[in-house]
Amino acid sequence: MNMIRGKDTDMSEKITLSHGSGGRASHDLIEKLFVASFGSKSLGDLEDSAVIQAGREKIAFSTDSFVVDPIFFPGGDIGSLAVHGTVNDLAMRGARPLYLSVGMIIEEGFAYKDLETIVRSLKDGTDKAGVEIVAGDTKVVQSGKADRIFINTTGIGLLDMEFDISARNGRPGDTIILSGTMADHGATILCQREGLLIEGGFTSDSAPLNHMVAAMLKKAGKSVHVLRDPTRGGVGTTLNELAMSSGVGIRIHEKGLPIRDDVRGACELLGLDPLYLANEGKLLAFVAPEAAESLLAVMQQMEFGENACIIGEVTADHPGQVVLETIIGSARIIDMLHGEPLPRIC
Amino acid sequence: MNMIRGKDTDMSEKITLSHGSGGRASHDLIEKLFVASFGSKSLGDLEDSAVIQAGREKIAFSTDSFVVDPIFFPGGDIGSLAVHGTVNDLAMRGARPLYLSVGMIIEEGFAYKDLETIVRSLKDGTDKAGVEIVAGDTKVVQSGKADRIFINTTGIGLLDMEFDISARNGRPGDTIILSGTMADHGATILCQREGLLIEGGFTSDSAPLNHMVAAMLKKAGKSVHVLRDPTRGGVGTTLNELAMSSGVGIRIHEKGLPIRDDVRGACELLGLDPLYLANEGKLLAFVAPEAAESLLAVMQQMEFGENACIIGEVTADHPGQVVLETIIGSARIIDMLHGEPLPRIC
Repeated sequence: MNMIRGKDTDMSEKITLSHGSGGRASHDLIEKLFVASFGSKSLGDLEDSAVIQAGREKIAFSTDSFVVDPIFFPGGDIGSLAVHGTVNDLAMRGARPLYLSVGMIIEEGFAYKDLETIVRSLKDGTDKAGVEIVAGDTKVVQSGKADRIFINTTGIGLLDMEFDISARNGRPGDTIILSGTMADHGATILCQREGLLIEGGFTSDSAPLNHMVAAMLKKAGKSVHVLRDPTRGGVGTTLNELAMSSGVGIRIHEKGLPIRDDVRGACELLGLDPLYLANEGKLLAFVAPEAAESLLAVMQQMEFGENACIIGEVTADHPGQVVLETIIGSARIIDMLHGEPLPRIC
Repeated sequence: MNMIRGKDTDMSEKITLSHGSGGRASHDLIEKLFVASFGSKSLGDLEDSAVIQAGREKIAFSTDSFVVDPIFFPGGDIGSLAVHGTVNDLAMRGARPLYLSVGMIIEEGFAYKDLETIVRSLKDGTDKAGVEIVAGDTKVVQSGKADRIFINTTGIGLLDMEFDISARNGRPGDTIILSGTMADHGATILCQREGLLIEGGFTSDSAPLNHMVAAMLKKAGKSVHVLRDPTRGGVGTTLNELAMSSGVGIRIHEKGLPIRDDVRGACELLGLDPLYLANEGKLLAFVAPEAAESLLAVMQQMEFGENACIIGEVTADHPGQVVLETIIGSARIIDMLHGEPLPRIC
């Protein structure tokens, strides 16, 4: 198939880590191989969840495989991450998450006590999110053929027909809200991987966002146009995706970007831009400007939303581009990276 | 948690290949850790699919991770297997499979052309089964951290409220039908792995069974009590599961067990019992005896059902046990194995 080797792509003959990074290489692979081959409208939409008709109901359906390294980290583990990740992907379509499946691939020799810990995290995660694990599968591969444990979670949520939340629905004039501080998860994983002591004591932000979304929809659901959790690729890549999907421009204000001082310090030490580091318990919302303050107030009252703030707005000019207005007043284009700074962040 | 280290189990401190085999060790792990921890009724039912309520609709939901080695084999590859496996798990509840998600974990350095081949197989498989891939996820891990490619497929199917097909519904007197020859998939994989030339030219039986199930339900859906595809662990393990779930005895007749001569020969050479080798395009049906002949006729007219035959019956005596009546007239108990003869069969 020529489609993935056209001269407009830099795809080589081998899969590289960048293809799994959530950046431009991932997008190329998804669009040029998967979407082109499967011919699925839902896949082509590049949403966090597919929205499908099952009889008389519209349901959201989302899958995610978790290969995070390390599997245990401050603020969570691969089990809690696997629940929150899929619950959040469902919530980002405005769906009420209901059911999860869990597929585990375990390396022979993996310690039981670690599996028990992860299973407990899965259970705690589902309890907190109010969803149920109803289907599961376990495979074991020989020692050396997997890296300890990989977990796939796939989820089903029920959609309220009244609302239409999609990456395509951003409109010029929309206010952009970020639900809290940036880069906590990415910085935590990278510090642990590099053996850096986390001085400020920040941890992964891994958390279920469905209750916050439910509160937002209850307050002013029709004013919520876009929801997206900025995981792999961070706020920078996610905003680029949304600008492209909605065909709009995005302007954000450096001054308004929430980030913990200790996370900023860690990012400087690691030489990484927090705009591109993964979050696992944050959401971006594009909302009608007249509802922005009331939605922000709702978010700030919810668990995991106390630091929510307005970070920018959707513009009619420069469609597909994300522009950062810096603290000194200049403007800089925030591009989509080719790959994540480091692999296996989630 | 003591529950998984009680003296009634032989679980050690480490996960072993047996825990992923579909045999007794897998069952122990599922029941004593996953079901006990998650407290999910659906998981506890140990069905191929969960049946869940999504608004006004009853849907079947099933997940499976595929780690088969080799990834390409006569009769299919990991892509076709991943589609058929989940489609069949949905069909085994009598559901009409509609949608699949595909989660891939790919090892860095994996060849594009192999990924293209697998993607084509996924697409061909879904076309043949009449389902759509609507959600996907791709992760890439470093070279040496996974074995080429692992694929999770999770599926959604719509249930016809009129029918009630479950592993618990076997009744004394039911006729047991097997839809075709045994052990084709398992023998194919093992021969390829051992470097044996397949003389007779048998291949994996990997195939979607949903159209056959639809025809059976149309013919006499209320007479179909149990459907199960005997994958990991083969016909022997699957019948044990069904005997336990339904609380009935099972008697099968060696004379009636369909097996290709070349597969039988390969099994003898490998020293393996075809009763315990995986099938990927076969189903076991427990049906009301008065409908058995008409259902059998329907199956034999369908693709993948031409060799369907009656292999035994459900009994009220020896509940939970599977008894094989041998060709020479003696009876032998077919037990559940501790583990699959060899791992990563699917």
